[in-house]
Amino acid sequence: MPCTISVTAPSYAITPFTFTSSKSTPISHTSNFLTKQNRKPLTVTKSMNSNRKGAVKVNATVSIEKETPETERPDTFLRGSENDASSVRYRFEKMIREAQDRVCNAIEIADGGGKFKEDVWSRPGGGGGISRVLQDGAVWEKAGVNVSVVYGQMPPDAYRAAKGAAANDQKPGPIPFFAAGISSVNAPGAPRQWWFGGGTDLTPAYIFEEDVKHFHSVQKKACDKFDPTFYPRFKKWCDDYFYIKHRDERRGLGGIFFDDLNDYDQEMLLSFATECANSVIPAYIPIIEKRKDLPFTDHQKAWQQLRRGRYVEFNLVYDRGTTFGLKTGGRIESILVSLPLTARWEYDHKPEVGSEEWKLLDACINPKEWI
Amino acid sequence: MPCTISVTAPSYAITPFTFTSSKSTPISHTSNFLTKQNRKPLTVTKSMNSNRKGAVKVNATVSIEKETPETERPDTFLRGSENDASSVRYRFEKMIREAQDRVCNAIEIADGGGKFKEDVWSRPGGGGGISRVLQDGAVWEKAGVNVSVVYGQMPPDAYRAAKGAAANDQKPGPIPFFAAGISSVNAPGAPRQWWFGGGTDLTPAYIFEEDVKHFHSVQKKACDKFDPTFYPRFKKWCDDYFYIKHRDERRGLGGIFFDDLNDYDQEMLLSFATECANSVIPAYIPIIEKRKDLPFTDHQKAWQQLRRGRYVEFNLVYDRGTTFGLKTGGRIESILVSLPLTARWEYDHKPEVGSEEWKLLDACINPKEWI
Repeated sequence: MPCTISVTAPSYAITPFTFTSSKSTPISHTSNFLTKQNRKPLTVTKSMNSNRKGAVKVNATVSIEKETPETERPDTFLRGSENDASSVRYRFEKMIREAQDRVCNAIEIADGGGKFKEDVWSRPGGGGGISRVLQDGAVWEKAGVNVSVVYGQMPPDAYRAAKGAAANDQKPGPIPFFAAGISSVNAPGAPRQWWFGGGTDLTPAYIFEEDVKHFHSVQKKACDKFDPTFYPRFKKWCDDYFYIKHRDERRGLGGIFFDDLNDYDQEMLLSFATECANSVIPAYIPIIEKRKDLPFTDHQKAWQQLRRGRYVEFNLVYDRGTTFGLKTGGRIESILVSLPLTARWEYDHKPEVGSEEWKLLDACINPKEWI
Repeated sequence: MPCTISVTAPSYAITPFTFTSSKSTPISHTSNFLTKQNRKPLTVTKSMNSNRKGAVKVNATVSIEKETPETERPDTFLRGSENDASSVRYRFEKMIREAQDRVCNAIEIADGGGKFKEDVWSRPGGGGGISRVLQDGAVWEKAGVNVSVVYGQMPPDAYRAAKGAAANDQKPGPIPFFAAGISSVNAPGAPRQWWFGGGTDLTPAYIFEEDVKHFHSVQKKACDKFDPTFYPRFKKWCDDYFYIKHRDERRGLGGIFFDDLNDYDQEMLLSFATECANSVIPAYIPIIEKRKDLPFTDHQKAWQQLRRGRYVEFNLVYDRGTTFGLKTGGRIESILVSLPLTARWEYDHKPEVGSEEWKLLDACINPKEWI
């Protein structure tokens, strides 16, 4: 089996916690918690006013301040009154940072050689992140596990990118946003809303049915602790979201995905996010352990590279987190660490009907019920 | 020198004639001629009405009919009264098809081994194309030289993608369009407009100053035959267009680019397009001949792959032709043949200051005057 497994990275630039593996047996996981404040009248800055005409015009670097590198990790990226240990935002940041530590540790052990390199960064106005990337490991070509805590003014196009088409009902104008437990929801009298999204999906080059069943079962178990309707709903949501429209196929074999769950309370969402984050290692690492030493042919490697090309197409053209990040001037290296180390595009490639490659493609075109 | 040179393909899905090389010494060339008819009231089909809300909602496959493969090249893709040998559209198609033949021939000779594979396709309502791809040649990894002649109803988002932000003043609703000399401008009483765009740009992984000077000189010479202001204007336009905003760098070393030149008459534009198409071989092939046998290191190859990653980022995120094509349900394999065979993304890669890689990057960040 192609085994240069890479865990790559953030589907959501603004997301507190996210990691994606784009590999022979790759998964992605994101936990996003974002509160937004729909205060009116919205503050419209000059740069944003001039950006109303179209997505291509968004001068994103203006809308979120440039990040600066830090020499060490702060205890929290929250500031002043935000830094309250009992708040959901504080506990969310703590949870995702602990998950980052555990996942990086599990990946380093499974890799048996590579070490994560860490970059800590902050923004002058508050917020920041910890990007960890393992490159050229023994098993993983590239593995990214990132935490970011970002807030600021969000241009309308970026808001639409983050929320999807449903956001079209929003008035134009920048949306103040606060991600990863950072918010000013405490401002007296301000109407409140929060946005919570996340998911975990598997993107292998070949199908090992028992692996896919295992992966989906772990997701289902996490969901079932909260609501028996979660897994079927979020499984379908995942199939719908990771859809490469111009190919009429999904980027992989799915998992769970959910977005804008603001009809649940924040405590419940924090618990659910914690459960999902805790599911990553049991869902993913056993698959890696089982398959990482399988030999593979050049033909299999080339197919894996083609599937990575599809992954690139999805992330650059459709992924809301990536397009949001590019538009808001997020930290580019953190956003694009989700791209694989290497990818391939062959003209008019069609796998032979009935082959293992064809089976994977078929499952991407016609999503299956795995459990 | 990394020498797996690939001439890849269409910046413009609808474009009559376009080819792009994404290589060690790569160029792209496009000639686009599109007439549109601003007849009112516009025909709004059901699928388009429901697609108004946002780019992600455009159900493009409905807006242009699916292509069907053909076993042989027709003499023209024009039909009925469109098929008039004295018309600009007829002569434009003829010119670009002849240019396609010559360029493919020149590439096959320079490659010394690879042969182009041809796909001919048509659409039931009219239009079609000839896609030619040479893959795994002795010199080129992937070379695409495409002609397409497409018309139909264009959804507003696709129109904006093709025209750029300036198109925001357009009323919503589908725009009837006719590309590559195909039009119904002869319809009596209909207000007329045409759109002509194109360009040729060079995207090497390393700078050979004499090559870049040669390339720009050939473009300038072609421009100067028409208007001494063309080269400086179109050179700057090229630098502005091939801009990867989230990186704050261009994808390559530029050339000429122009768009929406509807303030010139069609005869002049046909002559200029012909001149540009005829410049491709003298601008490009001598560079390939001079460099194709240079040896290269793994380090140089990896850098070339990283630059190709940037090429992918530009084409999938910003290129109007690609985004237009993906939104209108153009022939995906023809549109995405512009993507390189292989590409690479390393986390936070920074070339050493003063190195050859740094010099290329510097010229992408700060466009130079080459002549």
